[in-house]
Amino acid sequence: MSVKTDIANIAQRAKKASQYLNTASESIKNKALIQMSKGLLKDAEAILKANKLDIAAASKEGKSAAFCDRLKLTETRIKKMSADLVCVAGLPDPVGQVIKMLKRPNGLMIEKIRVPLGVIGIIYESRPDVTSDCAGLCLKAGNAVILRGGRESINSNIAIYKAISKAIKKSGLPEGCINLIKSVDRKAVNMMLEMSDYIDLVIPRGGESLIRMVVENSKIPVIKHYKGICHSYVDEHADLDMAEEVVFNAKVQRPSTCNAMECLLVHKKVAKQFLPRVIKRFKAAGVEIRGCRNTASLVKGIKLATARDYATEYLGLILSVKIVDNMAVACQHIAKYGTRHSEAIITNNFQNGVTFFKTVDAACVYVNASTRFTDGNQFGLGAEIGISTDKLHARGPVGLEELTTYKYVIMGNGQIRT
Amino acid sequence: MSVKTDIANIAQRAKKASQYLNTASESIKNKALIQMSKGLLKDAEAILKANKLDIAAASKEGKSAAFCDRLKLTETRIKKMSADLVCVAGLPDPVGQVIKMLKRPNGLMIEKIRVPLGVIGIIYESRPDVTSDCAGLCLKAGNAVILRGGRESINSNIAIYKAISKAIKKSGLPEGCINLIKSVDRKAVNMMLEMSDYIDLVIPRGGESLIRMVVENSKIPVIKHYKGICHSYVDEHADLDMAEEVVFNAKVQRPSTCNAMECLLVHKKVAKQFLPRVIKRFKAAGVEIRGCRNTASLVKGIKLATARDYATEYLGLILSVKIVDNMAVACQHIAKYGTRHSEAIITNNFQNGVTFFKTVDAACVYVNASTRFTDGNQFGLGAEIGISTDKLHARGPVGLEELTTYKYVIMGNGQIRT
Repeated sequence: MSVKTDIANIAQRAKKASQYLNTASESIKNKALIQMSKGLLKDAEAILKANKLDIAAASKEGKSAAFCDRLKLTETRIKKMSADLVCVAGLPDPVGQVIKMLKRPNGLMIEKIRVPLGVIGIIYESRPDVTSDCAGLCLKAGNAVILRGGRESINSNIAIYKAISKAIKKSGLPEGCINLIKSVDRKAVNMMLEMSDYIDLVIPRGGESLIRMVVENSKIPVIKHYKGICHSYVDEHADLDMAEEVVFNAKVQRPSTCNAMECLLVHKKVAKQFLPRVIKRFKAAGVEIRGCRNTASLVKGIKLATARDYATEYLGLILSVKIVDNMAVACQHIAKYGTRHSEAIITNNFQNGVTFFKTVDAACVYVNASTRFTDGNQFGLGAEIGISTDKLHARGPVGLEELTTYKYVIMGNGQIRT
Repeated sequence: MSVKTDIANIAQRAKKASQYLNTASESIKNKALIQMSKGLLKDAEAILKANKLDIAAASKEGKSAAFCDRLKLTETRIKKMSADLVCVAGLPDPVGQVIKMLKRPNGLMIEKIRVPLGVIGIIYESRPDVTSDCAGLCLKAGNAVILRGGRESINSNIAIYKAISKAIKKSGLPEGCINLIKSVDRKAVNMMLEMSDYIDLVIPRGGESLIRMVVENSKIPVIKHYKGICHSYVDEHADLDMAEEVVFNAKVQRPSTCNAMECLLVHKKVAKQFLPRVIKRFKAAGVEIRGCRNTASLVKGIKLATARDYATEYLGLILSVKIVDNMAVACQHIAKYGTRHSEAIITNNFQNGVTFFKTVDAACVYVNASTRFTDGNQFGLGAEIGISTDKLHARGPVGLEELTTYKYVIMGNGQIRT
């Protein structure tokens, strides 16, 4: 069978299953999730065996240690994947939620109700845990899913897919609820991105080049996350002890994440008091500092930051630092270099706090807290499929609600328009 | 100045203005809308004069009477455009609305707040009233707008734009809030659709070919409305008198609109009783009927419907009719030929009503009412910019709320992630 026919068959199968899932009860969806969770444990051995093949091939290809680490599954990781599915089963079902109820003078009752999107395509890199993770979230929100993982994880993905497919069947839902594209041909992705008659939404998960490729080629709406260049601005009215704890946490607690701080902006009036001590602490934690000229003249022995630094998502222990004349300049810097992800101000001045969060255009704006909180679980929204830096449909954490749409149901007793 | 530089300048001007509008108060936006409303009346003479040039050119080019009618402005139409802006000023401001408030165990207060999208591009055909209409709605929702109307209405659009621009200036808002692309070069649209760094959303308003062109070429998210092939299904348990009134209204009250019924589905058990009388009434109102074989054998002298008929948005006095074995078949027909716009069932059976609205995938699903109600005003949502047949971001009427996005504002007192 050609790749094209294969993709078309999968898309049609998913669409058909989505029409069934559309009205599936919460209890049957939860039952399927619990079965999937058990299925992963039951098939753990087969999954680990398949993963070994992927790891061996990746090592042979000379992939980096970080790459292999993301690719690698262990018993602990499988247990985590299994437990995450149980968590998703425990989250409230967004489907059927009444968003709004409008009663019209002519007696029409208009309900705006949350409903599944239909079919969601997920395109991701070689991280096999994404397979069960995305399958679970899409299913809970009543959507069929088409998964397309990285070539290097194909054996692991097929093994995981087999385990959860059996579980789906056992639960009584159609197998087409969860679909995996097994072809590693790159053209398969392009074909998938053409299927706008069958797929309602595409979510790419991975690096910037993957996401750009999806955006450039997709005929289907995309929810994406390019990168997170997050700033913390220490205002002249900041509590400097609080500021130190918050910015240290934002940078150091887990620097490889998209919500970690990449640039520290400091009001000139507090720079002298604040920067030497905080930079000392950063350096002790192994953070390389790249500062503006004024920072460099305050603290000796640091590299000068270039415009390119300000535009870089380091995802590691490097931090750019800039002293600014006032909050407006800080906001302008964020508008220029920020990626609309997470931005913070540390201040005790009420008006500055309000002006900052009103002015800064980002998914999440913090006053006196670490940007590291941008996360569906931390927000109390439950598990998420990613953080959107888009403005349409979903912004910030993409949880179950963001994997749905709505419809209007209008109930009448013979109303006609005059 | 080249078209490209011109478009880039406009886009940058709009983005700059949007940063100002982002925090503009409701009262200044309303003041601007009232000034715009007055400006149209004050400049009515100049607008009508410019419109005469457009009408003369269109007649010379041999444009249809319907085309010229949409293009034509009269004193009454300008008064209507002016009054509509006053209505928009009276609508509640969606910006700043708190959608959700989450209090976390660590004391973080997370507000999900409605905020403007930024810059919206509107690409439309030669209907000059769209110019003031879209400008007003975008402004009220706190967005800068870039308008690009049809070539044939360029003189009218420039005159309207001048009138509202003066008003914007008078109100104290930056002129860049409202922008008109004056170039009639088709390439200008393509350039506009590339400006994803400056424009956040594009809304095409017009026929299917315009919309397809925008979707194919846009690097910016699009909210669109392809077409409305709306069905009414008369169930075996319908009150046939009610059904007659409702389907007659859905077809005849204003057949040129997207929410008018194009296809009538009738359960076989009531077809004999229902169809002859309702077809007689349709025919008396000048509606041409195209029926399935069974319909044709029930009512003599009607054309046979083809698959192509079922896939056609007539936008006029033609109706396709099909007798179905049961509700499931009706739903399948709708899934195949419907455009996810507005679909109705007429039934007194509770379970059938519920199953229908759960099963049918459309922006608006009606039980016992005319599909003609799909409209922002009729829903009590206020004025709208169109009806979206998309599922992402906005579905159904696109009113002020749909012209916004949201952000999370997180307020803390030094919280860090552990």
